[in-house]
Amino acid sequence: MPKKVDHQARRTLIANALMRVAAEQGLEAVSLRHVAAEAGVSAGMVQHYFRTKDEMMTFALDVVRERGQARITEAVGRLGPDPSPRLLLRTMIAALLPLDDRTRDDGRVALAFLAYAAVRPAAAPGLRDDTAQLVEFIATLLPTRDAKPAAAGLLALMEGLGIYLLGGQYTPEQALTVLDTHLDLLFG
Amino acid sequence: MPKKVDHQARRTLIANALMRVAAEQGLEAVSLRHVAAEAGVSAGMVQHYFRTKDEMMTFALDVVRERGQARITEAVGRLGPDPSPRLLLRTMIAALLPLDDRTRDDGRVALAFLAYAAVRPAAAPGLRDDTAQLVEFIATLLPTRDAKPAAAGLLALMEGLGIYLLGGQYTPEQALTVLDTHLDLLFG
Repeated sequence: MPKKVDHQARRTLIANALMRVAAEQGLEAVSLRHVAAEAGVSAGMVQHYFRTKDEMMTFALDVVRERGQARITEAVGRLGPDPSPRLLLRTMIAALLPLDDRTRDDGRVALAFLAYAAVRPAAAPGLRDDTAQLVEFIATLLPTRDAKPAAAGLLALMEGLGIYLLGGQYTPEQALTVLDTHLDLLFG
Repeated sequence: MPKKVDHQARRTLIANALMRVAAEQGLEAVSLRHVAAEAGVSAGMVQHYFRTKDEMMTFALDVVRERGQARITEAVGRLGPDPSPRLLLRTMIAALLPLDDRTRDDGRVALAFLAYAAVRPAAAPGLRDDTAQLVEFIATLLPTRDAKPAAAGLLALMEGLGIYLLGGQYTPEQALTVLDTHLDLLFG
């Protein structure tokens, strides 16, 4: 009987190696060769699952995005029924910030992807829609007059806090104080 | 008479090539080989001026930082004497945002550097002090009670707007509207 290849397991093996390389060594280390070495497979095998670097990068961002969604769902679930809009927003944003080692790894992958996408817009076709949807949703929670630009600003502030947390300019405590001060302004 | 080597001109030649490679092809293309090819010199010559990739990246960020400072000085100079704190802040931040082709190139280099520094904190020793100084200065211009975290938030918002401008999620007009909405909040 021919050996049955577990494609899903192999793809996951390679994807996990890709995420480790991206988080530990950064964007420029994400090559077929590096990922293959980390996964303990051949470069040809990696290429079978991810034909181009764009495909690898997009997949890595999808993994980061799914983990972020899962963290939000978990954190919001702990709030109980009918949290205030302010508490809901604070919980969602804190769940997405790179505040601990685990989320820092994801944050590094996301930042590497953003730097990559900034010179190759074609690599990130879904980025614009994602942001627009998030802005629309946040706007429904804000009591301010200019809810949409205020929501877009809150999202930009979150992105910038992520950068400063990863760069070591702000500590987790400072970042959360900045977030709370901003929510004070928005919720008056 | 032996030929006199113009070291400053050579360093500038190589630095300009480095900036073009970083802006057009992104972080992972900034290698001795790529920069040498772009500058039309040997890899050994590049290595003579920049011994490591860290040195090249730090130099590129210094160039971006100096250009940003020059843009701020120019824009603030056009304001005339005694501009209001709000106008001064708006002018400074707009001068740093990647709103046109020229500043987008600089923004891509800065973003590439941030992604690089996020996995190699040693490459960015000055980043923390720079941000802290900017936060202190902005705080002196804000009328709000929590001036320091509010200043840190404004800086994070600027950083995030830069990311979204480079990624194409926000247009220049949208980014400026977000900035103005945030200044409305801060200046009440």
